Amino acid sequence: MKYVRFRDPAGAVRRGTLESGHVHFANESYDLDSDEIDVLPPCEPSKIVCIGRNYADHADEMGSDVPDRPLLFLKPPNALAGHGDTVTVPAGKERIDHEAELAVVIGEQCRHVPEADAMDVVEGFTCMNDVSNRDDQRQEQNWIRGKAFDGAAPLGPVLATPDEVPADASVQTRVNGELRQDGHREQLIFPIPELIAEITTYMTLEPGDVIATGTPEGVGALNDGDEVEIEVEGVGVLEHTVRVP
Amino acid sequence: MKYVRFRDPAGAVRRGTLESGHVHFANESYDLDSDEIDVLPPCEPSKIVCIGRNYADHADEMGSDVPDRPLLFLKPPNALAGHGDTVTVPAGKERIDHEAELAVVIGEQCRHVPEADAMDVVEGFTCMNDVSNRDDQRQEQNWIRGKAFDGAAPLGPVLATPDEVPADASVQTRVNGELRQDGHREQLIFPIPELIAEITTYMTLEPGDVIATGTPEGVGALNDGDEVEIEVEGVGVLEHTVRVP
Repeated sequence: MKYVRFRDPAGAVRRGTLESGHVHFANESYDLDSDEIDVLPPCEPSKIVCIGRNYADHADEMGSDVPDRPLLFLKPPNALAGHGDTVTVPAGKERIDHEAELAVVIGEQCRHVPEADAMDVVEGFTCMNDVSNRDDQRQEQNWIRGKAFDGAAPLGPVLATPDEVPADASVQTRVNGELRQDGHREQLIFPIPELIAEITTYMTLEPGDVIATGTPEGVGALNDGDEVEIEVEGVGVLEHTVRVP
Repeated sequence: MKYVRFRDPAGAVRRGTLESGHVHFANESYDLDSDEIDVLPPCEPSKIVCIGRNYADHADEMGSDVPDRPLLFLKPPNALAGHGDTVTVPAGKERIDHEAELAVVIGEQCRHVPEADAMDVVEGFTCMNDVSNRDDQRQEQNWIRGKAFDGAAPLGPVLATPDEVPADASVQTRVNGELRQDGHREQLIFPIPELIAEITTYMTLEPGDVIATGTPEGVGALNDGDEVEIEVEGVGVLEHTVRVP
């Protein structure tokens, strides 16, 4: 199944099912990209737990080693943006990058989840752009100015149940139609069950919380007016525009 | 004014006023430490923005330089614990420390707040223990295992309006009755208006969000069964117990 959260023409927040590009709820049906509805992020995370350097080719392009355990960082709810939104990035920076990611949406409150049971707490997958302000990221211990700013986490639009997403699903970025990143889920250094087990050793995950699994090689600069598409095979395409103030 | 958030004997969540050690709501009154009520954290933050090395004497005891701009990190909502709670810290660690902090509670949604207007967005102050797992903190880029685990942010119990808290308010930790930390608000390297201006350059703060302003010298190890008191002058005393599994 594929789900889309949206605000309907009456202003009510609904979760509908997506079939053939149309969102269905009760007796109503809307085109996903129609102006009649506002597409929202597919969940309401209390936190987004992100994984750094989880593809060897990306660690390499950043001049970094592959970590010996998952490199964790956080994006708070203020970072969220939705499908079709214009993301205004921090002003006056030299370099703000796209990072396409397969994002895991948690379905139930959980702690101390063994790897073997980890997929039981997954509701599904969605697309995320881990928008990264390199100017500040390079200068700070914790990546807050670098990765936790407003709009640093465009998310959505589709929440696809795990059966919809191939084991080797592609994870891509296109900018103004040009392919920039093209990785595969099988390249994850730490696969999803290991990530869930490690994170829940330390913290409770809540329904709607998100784990962003890292980005493949090919990260690159975003400029004013860029149209970004993040596509995860089996999930769909997240589109947003960039504004550099 | 001083406020306390609590669950009353009927299970309803209330915010009462605190006078002479008693919490008042409507026609009812309860002793703050009575078993009749469950004292809750005084607000419901979507994020806790924390400041590292904001007292020169603490930076020095950690062998660190004073940063040239605020060192930011995040604690997510799962880190919260309340007055009177037992905080179970991560298992198998050599060193988990207390860090007494003056915490700022935000009163309104805000972004791009100039220093001169920053105190207008402050609802009040409370006490926080920035419980810190040094084993992991020393090994990771972002302090997630180190400082974002469940129970890493005991907060409360009182929210005191700014007029209640002296400009040089003391910030103290006692462990099992022994004074361990004793700093003063005037020692903050980056004062509160500068912190609010800097943070809101990058992100929106929401009502109930918390800024933890850093800890003075004297941080030290917590052990199983320790009774911790964090006191901010003009606010009150936050008490919790430590369990090392």
